[in-house]
Amino acid sequence: MYAMKTEKLVIHEVGPRDGLQMEEQTVPKEQKLRWIEQMLTTGLDIIQVGSFVHPVKVPQMADTDELFMELTRAGKKSPGVLLSGLVLNEKGLDRGLACGVEMFCMGVSASETHSMRNTRMSIADATDQIISVARKAQDAGRRVQLSVQSAFGCGYEGPVPEERVLGLVGRFLEAGFRNISLADTAGHAAPDQVERLFEAVQALDDTVACACHFHNTYGLGLANCHAAMKVGVKSFESSVAGLGGCPFTRVAGGNVSTEDLVHMLHRMNIRRDIDLRKLISVAEAVSRFFEREMPGMVYKSGPIPEKPIPA
Amino acid sequence: MYAMKTEKLVIHEVGPRDGLQMEEQTVPKEQKLRWIEQMLTTGLDIIQVGSFVHPVKVPQMADTDELFMELTRAGKKSPGVLLSGLVLNEKGLDRGLACGVEMFCMGVSASETHSMRNTRMSIADATDQIISVARKAQDAGRRVQLSVQSAFGCGYEGPVPEERVLGLVGRFLEAGFRNISLADTAGHAAPDQVERLFEAVQALDDTVACACHFHNTYGLGLANCHAAMKVGVKSFESSVAGLGGCPFTRVAGGNVSTEDLVHMLHRMNIRRDIDLRKLISVAEAVSRFFEREMPGMVYKSGPIPEKPIPA
Repeated sequence: MYAMKTEKLVIHEVGPRDGLQMEEQTVPKEQKLRWIEQMLTTGLDIIQVGSFVHPVKVPQMADTDELFMELTRAGKKSPGVLLSGLVLNEKGLDRGLACGVEMFCMGVSASETHSMRNTRMSIADATDQIISVARKAQDAGRRVQLSVQSAFGCGYEGPVPEERVLGLVGRFLEAGFRNISLADTAGHAAPDQVERLFEAVQALDDTVACACHFHNTYGLGLANCHAAMKVGVKSFESSVAGLGGCPFTRVAGGNVSTEDLVHMLHRMNIRRDIDLRKLISVAEAVSRFFEREMPGMVYKSGPIPEKPIPA
Repeated sequence: MYAMKTEKLVIHEVGPRDGLQMEEQTVPKEQKLRWIEQMLTTGLDIIQVGSFVHPVKVPQMADTDELFMELTRAGKKSPGVLLSGLVLNEKGLDRGLACGVEMFCMGVSASETHSMRNTRMSIADATDQIISVARKAQDAGRRVQLSVQSAFGCGYEGPVPEERVLGLVGRFLEAGFRNISLADTAGHAAPDQVERLFEAVQALDDTVACACHFHNTYGLGLANCHAAMKVGVKSFESSVAGLGGCPFTRVAGGNVSTEDLVHMLHRMNIRRDIDLRKLISVAEAVSRFFEREMPGMVYKSGPIPEKPIPA
C-alpha cells in the first residue's frame, strides 16, 4: 500500500543552512559543529552544512567552507552520511568543490518576483545559469540535486502555474539531471496539490528521483510530507527543531521539523533506525541557544513512550 | 480521486468544550457567548457548546445549561448549525434534554486506565452505560454521536489494540447507532493507522458515518485529518485557535486548530463557504483573552493572499 516501504526514504537535514540563514543571531562555528556532529550520529542520511553565498550578504553562512573542511576530515563521519551544500552560482560552486562538498543543491524559483529578489535574474536566465553550474558539479564527479523553489505558490505572486513548474523540471530532465526537488518556499502547498504535482513530475520521466521541501507556515508540513510519500517521493528536506524560513519571501514559517518528521516515520514503521532521542536533544540545544521556543512539537512533548500491546 | 468531494465535509467545532475544559482560567459566560455567536455566523456546521459534568469537578463547564438556553432562543442562530453537548451519564443527559441540546456526543475509552481515571468505570461497564444513555437521547428525538476515545493510543497505556476499538464500534453499531467518532485523545495517531482503522470501521458496516477527533500533540493533526478524508471520514472535530487537550490523559497537546483545518479545505477547494477571516478573528480574541500564543498556525501567519494565476 505504501510505495515508500519498498525503498528507504531519505531524510535530508537542512537546518544548518535553511534554518540558520533565517536567524539574525550568528551561530559560532564551534556551535554549528557540535550540532552537526551530533546529527551525524543519529542515522540521518544527508546533512546540509551551509550555503556558498557572499559572506557579507549572509554573515550566518560565512563559515561554510571551514565547516566542510572540518567535517570531511578523516574519521569525522561515516561514509554513509552525505554532506550537502547549497550554491547559487559558479563562484559558490568553485568554493564548494575546493572544500569537499559531496552533494550540491541548487535551484531556480518558479516565481519571477521571487527569482528577481533572490538572484536578480529572470527565471529563464537563472535556469540557464544553474544548469551550467550543475553540469560543472557533475563533471567534477559530485552528486547534484536540482530544485524548483516556490513550486507550490509564492509569497509575492500567490499561485504559481503548475505548467511553469513542470517546464522547469523538464529543462532539468533534458539536461540529464534526475534528482529533482520541489520546494514549497512560502508554505502554500496543500496535500492534493502535492500529490498532483509530484505525479505530474513522475509522468514526465519515470526514472526521476523526487525530493520535497516543505515549510510549516500554515500547519501543513507533515500532511504534505505524508501526501508526497504516498505518491512516491523518496527524499525529505527538514530542519531540526523546525528552524527556518526564507528571508527573501514575504511570509515564511519554519521548515518541517526533522524530529517531528522522524517521529511520524517511527510511528508508521517506515524508518526506525534514526535516533529520535538524540535528535530531540539537538532540538533542545537549538532552543536553548536561541533562548526561545522553537516550532517543532516532538521536542516539547517528548516521544510517545513505547510499550508492547497488552495481550 | 477525493471521496469527500462528492459529499460535504462537516466541521464540528469543539473548542468551547474540549478546548476550554483544559484551561485553568475560567471564561465568563458572556465571553463564551461572544465567541460562539461569532462562530455561528462563519459557516461551521456543528458547535459543541459544553459538557454536562459536575460543576464542582469542572467549574469551566458550570454554565453549559445556561449557554444552551441562551443560544437556542429564537433568532440566535440559523437552523443549519447544530449545537452539540457532551454527556457522560444519564444525569448529564437529563440536563441536556432540558436545555435544548440538538446533538448529544458521548463515548467510552478504549484504554482501561483512561476509562477508570475519566469515569471510574471499566470499559465494559462504561460501554453498557453509554449505550443506555444514547438510547434515551435517541428516544427523545435528538441526534447522537458515539465515540471511542483513546482509539489510536493512550497516554497511560501506550498502544491500544485495534481489535478493542473495533469491538467497541461493533457494540455501538449493534445497538443501532451509525454516527461514530474515533478520538485520538492523546495525539498518538499516525496517518497509516488512521487509514487502517477507519477502513476497518467502514468494513464493519457500510452505512456508518465516521467522524474523527485529532490532537496535534506531535504535529500530526492535519496529516491525520487528510488521511481520514481520503478514506471517507465525513466529520472533523477541531478547536478554534488549537485550544484544548484532555486533562485526564498524561501528555495532551491542543486539538487540531479549526482555522488551520478550514484553511486546508479552502486550499483544497473542498469547503470554501466557511469564513476563514472571521474564524481567525475569534482565534485572535481567544489568544488575547488567555494572554498567550495559541497553537494554531494560520491565525498567526494570516491566510494566504488569493490572487488569480497570472496568464
